[in-house]
Amino acid sequence: MKLLVLGSGAGGGSPQWNCNSEVSMAVREKRDGTSIRTQSSIAVSADNENWFLFNASPDIGSQMLKNKQLHPKKKPRHSPISGVVLTNGDVDHVAGLLTLRERQNLSLYAHKRVHHVLSQNSIFNVLNPDYVDKREMVMNKEFELETKTFKKSGILVEAFEVPGKIALWLEDESKGANFGTQEGDTIGLKISSKNSSKSFFYIPACAKITDELRNRIDNSDLILFDGTLWKNDEMEDSNVGEKTGQRMGHMNNSGLDGSMEIFKKINVKRKIYIHINTTNPILLDYSNERKIVEQNGWEVSYDGMEIDL
Amino acid sequence: MKLLVLGSGAGGGSPQWNCNSEVSMAVREKRDGTSIRTQSSIAVSADNENWFLFNASPDIGSQMLKNKQLHPKKKPRHSPISGVVLTNGDVDHVAGLLTLRERQNLSLYAHKRVHHVLSQNSIFNVLNPDYVDKREMVMNKEFELETKTFKKSGILVEAFEVPGKIALWLEDESKGANFGTQEGDTIGLKISSKNSSKSFFYIPACAKITDELRNRIDNSDLILFDGTLWKNDEMEDSNVGEKTGQRMGHMNNSGLDGSMEIFKKINVKRKIYIHINTTNPILLDYSNERKIVEQNGWEVSYDGMEIDL
Repeated sequence: MKLLVLGSGAGGGSPQWNCNSEVSMAVREKRDGTSIRTQSSIAVSADNENWFLFNASPDIGSQMLKNKQLHPKKKPRHSPISGVVLTNGDVDHVAGLLTLRERQNLSLYAHKRVHHVLSQNSIFNVLNPDYVDKREMVMNKEFELETKTFKKSGILVEAFEVPGKIALWLEDESKGANFGTQEGDTIGLKISSKNSSKSFFYIPACAKITDELRNRIDNSDLILFDGTLWKNDEMEDSNVGEKTGQRMGHMNNSGLDGSMEIFKKINVKRKIYIHINTTNPILLDYSNERKIVEQNGWEVSYDGMEIDL
Repeated sequence: MKLLVLGSGAGGGSPQWNCNSEVSMAVREKRDGTSIRTQSSIAVSADNENWFLFNASPDIGSQMLKNKQLHPKKKPRHSPISGVVLTNGDVDHVAGLLTLRERQNLSLYAHKRVHHVLSQNSIFNVLNPDYVDKREMVMNKEFELETKTFKKSGILVEAFEVPGKIALWLEDESKGANFGTQEGDTIGLKISSKNSSKSFFYIPACAKITDELRNRIDNSDLILFDGTLWKNDEMEDSNVGEKTGQRMGHMNNSGLDGSMEIFKKINVKRKIYIHINTTNPILLDYSNERKIVEQNGWEVSYDGMEIDL
């Protein structure tokens, strides 16, 4: 099984279009030790032929162009992309669907709440149902991804709810402090190869590690985990916003309540941060914070990162 | 006044993600005489400080990154982009709005029908009304673009209806051969500098040149015009689809009913094709069709093309 990081950044990517804080500026200036990070998405293939995207980011156009694995292999129309799996309804995870038009067979897996909001937005009608088959992803039940024509992919997926938040554009302030968040609004995935015992976890958003989640990921080989913010009040600290990580449904890397500390008591062989916000100093190869996460056994993902499992 | 071509391609850009016809393939292979063309958008500034986008393409992220004029100039948050003007509701003209989130003041000008469909798609709620002011663009009446806080831009715009088609995702087959197309679904723009006598026309989609349109553009200095297809049945000919140019609301470059022929009887000093589909051979510097359009006095726009007016 092959895993390809298409976008290692959080919503808005790095640099972010209207952000001029330290990381965005350094990346735009192409300083050594920086790189462009597009928005959150990975691709997985068990046969090196059919690829499934996990989330479809607004940057999908440049992501498909940069990664030869996703270039068409046949004439006149073709794409190695066989389907898409969504972990929530965030703009940075669904807007790329608008690019996957033009008569291409796709299977689209999502929680029924995400399918529902997409169906209520007529712009997603560009996904012609003759070509795009919408499939409900049931929680806590392993299933095999299949192409539109039900060809088995060799990729097994188990989706499960994690603490998080409803997508920003679906927030309902009348519904109190959690803005109408329900179960299934944020999910994590266990992705396994059918032909080997290999598997990994992909959890790009997670507000808290519950006992249930801890038990699930303990003794695993690989996790790609929510690396959005270094600290909870980082946005305010960078003068780019007042929202905390918790308000946005993300736990921080550092601190006693941070993922680095919590993961010390969980046995995961390889730990990689993904979905990293442009305010997070771990994005700079030369930062002190990068050193700290590496000393704590974490890697920082980058666009184009490939992992063979 | 400065004009910057952000995206010279039609919907899907060139190469298009699942297209492997001649041009898409040549561009992916980086052959000499080819270049990547992102999706349809231009930017205009009268003061070299405030820029207005005309259409917001799905490729807006990479477009903003590639063009330094659009990089933030102040800390911590800033963008030289002051507003957006939409010529229709096509996905390749509106999806980029989803990227223009994150607390940035913008004025958004569009025909009331386009505002209406955006308002019916809750995903566009990411454009927080505290920051994004939606303004109705009245037809056939020159007005000055203003920032969110009503600062004058020095850019005058007159919008007018042109023959065209309703956006694909809004088509209603029950409404007959024109799929429910109404006036205002496709518009052209005359864009002028308040401080000089300079102006140009921007018409990225046009199904036919009516007498009214001919009179409007006659004796003008510059036009950026619908260059989508070389010939009406080009999509079928390239085996990538069966839709004709006319079906999609675009007139072809070549032939007796094509723009090259029709413009022979219209006096326009400088004529540039824009919104060019990846099936169109004029995109290849070395093609015979490129030679023909140049011999007929047309230029082929490219991403990053700058024009001083």
